Amino acid sequence: MSATGSSRPLGDGLDRLLSVASDSIADWIVLISAPGIGSRTATRLIERFGTPRAVADAPRQDLAAAGISPEAIAALKQPDTAALERILAWSDQPDAFVLTRADARYPPLLAEIPDAPLLLYVRGDPELLAEPQLAVVGSRNPTPSGLEITRDFARRLAADGLSITSGLALGVDGAAHAGALETGRTIAVLGTGPDLVYPATHRDLARRVAERGALVSEFPPGQGPSARNFPRRNRIISGLSVGVLVTEAALKSGSLITARFALEQGRDVFAVPGSIRNPLARGSHALIRDGAKLVEDPAEILLELAPMLRNLLAACPGEASVAPGEERAAAGRGATTTLDADYRALLDAMGFDPVAPDELIASSGRSAREVSSMLLVLELEGHVSSAPGGRFCRLGS
Amino acid sequence: MSATGSSRPLGDGLDRLLSVASDSIADWIVLISAPGIGSRTATRLIERFGTPRAVADAPRQDLAAAGISPEAIAALKQPDTAALERILAWSDQPDAFVLTRADARYPPLLAEIPDAPLLLYVRGDPELLAEPQLAVVGSRNPTPSGLEITRDFARRLAADGLSITSGLALGVDGAAHAGALETGRTIAVLGTGPDLVYPATHRDLARRVAERGALVSEFPPGQGPSARNFPRRNRIISGLSVGVLVTEAALKSGSLITARFALEQGRDVFAVPGSIRNPLARGSHALIRDGAKLVEDPAEILLELAPMLRNLLAACPGEASVAPGEERAAAGRGATTTLDADYRALLDAMGFDPVAPDELIASSGRSAREVSSMLLVLELEGHVSSAPGGRFCRLGS
Repeated sequence: MSATGSSRPLGDGLDRLLSVASDSIADWIVLISAPGIGSRTATRLIERFGTPRAVADAPRQDLAAAGISPEAIAALKQPDTAALERILAWSDQPDAFVLTRADARYPPLLAEIPDAPLLLYVRGDPELLAEPQLAVVGSRNPTPSGLEITRDFARRLAADGLSITSGLALGVDGAAHAGALETGRTIAVLGTGPDLVYPATHRDLARRVAERGALVSEFPPGQGPSARNFPRRNRIISGLSVGVLVTEAALKSGSLITARFALEQGRDVFAVPGSIRNPLARGSHALIRDGAKLVEDPAEILLELAPMLRNLLAACPGEASVAPGEERAAAGRGATTTLDADYRALLDAMGFDPVAPDELIASSGRSAREVSSMLLVLELEGHVSSAPGGRFCRLGS
Repeated sequence: MSATGSSRPLGDGLDRLLSVASDSIADWIVLISAPGIGSRTATRLIERFGTPRAVADAPRQDLAAAGISPEAIAALKQPDTAALERILAWSDQPDAFVLTRADARYPPLLAEIPDAPLLLYVRGDPELLAEPQLAVVGSRNPTPSGLEITRDFARRLAADGLSITSGLALGVDGAAHAGALETGRTIAVLGTGPDLVYPATHRDLARRVAERGALVSEFPPGQGPSARNFPRRNRIISGLSVGVLVTEAALKSGSLITARFALEQGRDVFAVPGSIRNPLARGSHALIRDGAKLVEDPAEILLELAPMLRNLLAACPGEASVAPGEERAAAGRGATTTLDADYRALLDAMGFDPVAPDELIASSGRSAREVSSMLLVLELEGHVSSAPGGRFCRLGS
């Protein structure tokens, strides 16, 4: 048995699949599908043996010594090829993607959390996952005012370039996705496989999210809804996001679980207060008492997140790319300048007359998304202001 | 010129007045009425010369050396006897009182603040001023819900033995006084003299407050409403109180001035949140962002204030009187017992059957007010619980 896997005891069907689909993704799926092996155990095994394939190829006694059950070892050595085939067939669709932790597109913020999923099934734009997102979550039965406030916050934040991440549930989740779709992009994290929509009434919403953003799940195609998977799903909603906003939530509410994950993950938590006569303001008020930031207007969230958004954009590969050395040097200059070289160059390219983003895209050679992200950061930091007609003015020096 | 004042160059009318009314109160009134002499200057002069009478009797050159203007020196040496006569005539009424800083009834919490008034004109029960109070303040034009919430909080807190202090203004102030009058006692701090009511529509409310509580002013009888006096009045509202509750207030609002005074005075600030679509929730939200405690229920305020209320009751002369040595000894016992001797004795007198406060008043020899205050503290600290029929049960040991 070698590490190349040529002598792995897999059926012909799987060997064919492996040659068609990505060899390595099939290995990851086999590993994470073994009974009792979750993200933590799988990560430990990969650290010990090197790769998912090497785990499967390891001698049985080594796997047993690593604490792996006989059932899991059997599943690694003789995987369920029919199940694997179904998953790989799903991933063959043009808008379907499987991102492993080793994939460059795996979202860096999510990678930071304990128990980060090893695999993400994505329908839509996988690149979106690495971009700045705000989670907007809350009650499945909000008040009419709570629905309107949710939709309004999502619409305005998405218009400013933040993607809105939520859980596709009824109520606040649905309003968050719908509001974001009016002006920008949105990500739905599912508690089912990526090919199923729960609740079914959100089937059309899910289709629009996939077209204009992304559906994400750690559960494989074919996995139906199960009550215990939804709270687990919430750690991904907060893990993907720079912060979590709760608009309306009862005291005992899944959205408070998401907010608690966010606090553990070191992310910002924002909460919209409400009347003390509204039971669905209780969750927000509890969060505010625990240190969440009280917000009355979406702009407050952008201002609060500005420094983090800037770091995130600077750290994204291919976005506002600054070599680590330059970045450190820029940081070391401290108060004498707060702008790193890329932002300074964009600012210098603006001059002092109002300029349209299209002109900056052309003159800088950057993508539309890069330029609009950088303009957002520059605006939040007070270096530029928006002018009529979608143009921008440089302020000060 | 001697310090006894017998040779003071006062007219016959004033000499007669001084023999009728309290000699010393007239001296305080003369001092604080001199032009340009406020509480701070008056306090400094009393510290320097000993008593208000000694200030008036001091040589002109000593007063000039202390920075006192010629006009103020003239007013001290030849006071406006007609004005003084009017004030003393007011104070001759049976429910009218003038409390100087030297008066044992001067409220101790108010005495702690910088710029505490030298004199308080009181109509009603002057003893009430030294008892625990919560200030409840807010908008002059609250929403119907804000009015109801204010009245409800005031009613429930007053029922638990906290007096409610406010400013007799329209809106939240009026609702706070009215709610408190339903179940307990209330104090109105005026921005006019104690004989005038502003706004006039609150004349009947002011009468009820005086009957069941107290009207308080630092301004002398006859002083009409003046815009600049109302913000100054707010420092007395917070200064009298263990904390300030804002129920509804716009961002630019006199009640935020009161809350800011409370923060400067080291008092607790509480704020009731509201819908972000309610402009009158903005003030509360701003306070919460600045560290005020978000409250949804009056019981949260009582729990938060319990330790302070207990200290206050222990420090009140004649209330739950514990010799300093005993108190320190009790504190020194630390976790083995958290009750000082007086509370322990009352608890021991209760036995474990439900007991009516009247029985405890009879058996302890304490006043009804003392017993009800002590029961409140014991209930807040979990040593007793209220039982049907207004009786109390002892809990645990």
